[in-house]
Amino acid sequence: MNKIKVHIEKGSSSSYEIHIGYQIMDRMALILANQGWAHRYFLLTDSRVSALHGERVLAILRGMGLTVEEIVFPGGEEQKSIHTCTELAERMMERGADRTSALIALGGGVVGDLTAFLASIYMRGIPHIQVPTTILAQVDSSIGGKTGVDLPSAKNLLGTFTQPKAVFIDLAFLETLSPREFINGLAEIVKYGIIEDPEILEELREGEEALRRRDPAFLAGIIAKACRIKKAIVESDETDKGLRRILNFGHTVGHAIEAESGFAVSHGEAVAMGMCAAALLSERRQYLSPEDREKIFAAIGQAGLPVRIPSSLDPEGILRGLKRDKKKEGDQIRFILLKRPGQPFVNGGIPLSLVRETIEELRA
Amino acid sequence: MNKIKVHIEKGSSSSYEIHIGYQIMDRMALILANQGWAHRYFLLTDSRVSALHGERVLAILRGMGLTVEEIVFPGGEEQKSIHTCTELAERMMERGADRTSALIALGGGVVGDLTAFLASIYMRGIPHIQVPTTILAQVDSSIGGKTGVDLPSAKNLLGTFTQPKAVFIDLAFLETLSPREFINGLAEIVKYGIIEDPEILEELREGEEALRRRDPAFLAGIIAKACRIKKAIVESDETDKGLRRILNFGHTVGHAIEAESGFAVSHGEAVAMGMCAAALLSERRQYLSPEDREKIFAAIGQAGLPVRIPSSLDPEGILRGLKRDKKKEGDQIRFILLKRPGQPFVNGGIPLSLVRETIEELRA
Repeated sequence: MNKIKVHIEKGSSSSYEIHIGYQIMDRMALILANQGWAHRYFLLTDSRVSALHGERVLAILRGMGLTVEEIVFPGGEEQKSIHTCTELAERMMERGADRTSALIALGGGVVGDLTAFLASIYMRGIPHIQVPTTILAQVDSSIGGKTGVDLPSAKNLLGTFTQPKAVFIDLAFLETLSPREFINGLAEIVKYGIIEDPEILEELREGEEALRRRDPAFLAGIIAKACRIKKAIVESDETDKGLRRILNFGHTVGHAIEAESGFAVSHGEAVAMGMCAAALLSERRQYLSPEDREKIFAAIGQAGLPVRIPSSLDPEGILRGLKRDKKKEGDQIRFILLKRPGQPFVNGGIPLSLVRETIEELRA
Repeated sequence: MNKIKVHIEKGSSSSYEIHIGYQIMDRMALILANQGWAHRYFLLTDSRVSALHGERVLAILRGMGLTVEEIVFPGGEEQKSIHTCTELAERMMERGADRTSALIALGGGVVGDLTAFLASIYMRGIPHIQVPTTILAQVDSSIGGKTGVDLPSAKNLLGTFTQPKAVFIDLAFLETLSPREFINGLAEIVKYGIIEDPEILEELREGEEALRRRDPAFLAGIIAKACRIKKAIVESDETDKGLRRILNFGHTVGHAIEAESGFAVSHGEAVAMGMCAAALLSERRQYLSPEDREKIFAAIGQAGLPVRIPSSLDPEGILRGLKRDKKKEGDQIRFILLKRPGQPFVNGGIPLSLVRETIEELRA
């Protein structure tokens, strides 16, 4: 089993370990039993993940003598709301959850973000543990401490920076993902390749066959690499004031596409399209060579992700979403652009007209 | 003008100053202009405070060249809800508030708690400034970084620990308080006298006449004293794990009374009744002498606060509220009891039957 330690400045209580391996729920139970982070645990999960894994995970934790109960809510992006969060708080209150309780998030990005946000505000903060079950959550949302819920007007409008006590990345969960979910998660891995370590793009290409088989050894290697990149960036900039912004590569346009599609376009697909937009903008502004831009499109396409924006989406709707994006400061919208693979930078302001042209060009 | 510096462990960004004086809004404007905490400020206030002070405060801030707009919401304890919080977030979003914006809480405890909570979760946290306009908020809720909103099932069920950038305590605001509001605020000052500095009780008795006149010099002295006590306790225990619990003296029963009355009993009145209950419990358990218990009842009554629980309140309802209180850990309900004035301690568990008897005895 692979172990990565994340050090957050604030003190040792905010540092934590990411455990990566195949079938490591027993190991998690042992660690929880030894650490004594809480008297009682609440396993928060959505109905789909609960049906697939809930009972097994509960049985393992209880087998180690832990007091755990499950709280299940419906799946879907629309659950990442303050309404669901409040309802979960009420259900915890009813069951007597107090400051000595802790939450375990078992699921994808929505479960993770929602659970972490709830943990950060329930009785002014109780501990939580992340058990991401999708690639996307394993390499991205479960690491870094960004929590949040969406409001109709904006994604993650309400949230906190809160670190988990530990992250357990069990590759066994990936076996039950649908092909679309699996590919969805590759977008963030491709992103790490583009912004930080182009070798990852090579590995993905060479490992195409292992990836299709969902080979645990191959996945463990590439996921650990992705986690290490994310953790290094988060360590140097927990609250998203500088370096961490490069993680937003592809997300500025991506979030706007996701919202405009009413979440019919998945997060990974939207980020893939957003990365294409950012690469194209970088080329237009002559930061990125046409060859490197080609390479990036090829890597995205080769992972099974889209390199075009569906023509059904209204470009003006996407632009409106961009203008609302919270990554703007004052009147400027920031973009993460590229000089070459592995060399991202923050660009203070691209004219909206150029963004419009780029989006038009990418529409299928 | 009096200035108190609060040091919070996490680093200098969490330390801040409490400014105390008469008519210090000009001074606040100057400090805000010099500090550059934000590009834009949103003055959050309730309709009553807005009508009394909103325009004047806005004019002073704008006179110093600051970009400020007012966001007004209805007054009342029931506004301290996640619903109001979400609505305010939407209104801020509509007006383009971003990460370079900051909030100013102008009002009593509800405005302060709600604004601070919103600031702590809006776009994962933006700065805020406290301008408490009631005694209660000046000596208690504006200091210490506890933020929160109520859910139907429990007070402050959702909240965070978040420090303001600064607190400005302007005694001029106290001139517009109703007699009931004014007396309401004395409860927390009396509490500091009981748990930490019995001299305060003397001062309140001797200064009865100055207090009735709301003499700024007298108020400045006693409020500064109260703030210093609170800040010292908060500094040593920001997240309420140890010493800070003594601030809950009178609040365990107090919160339950407040809730059971549907907030017809004010916070200060409820805390006064709760302090009587805690003193009586302390006497029953033979920690506190009958003479000291008498002295405490006298100090509370002399401040114009109740030493009896209204007979209209159902004792069983109060007990149910107690059992829900988040200050319980596991199955134990904790009480802050007294050995003598100035010597509080945390008691792990008083039998509910004794609490019931005490409440019965205190009913008018």
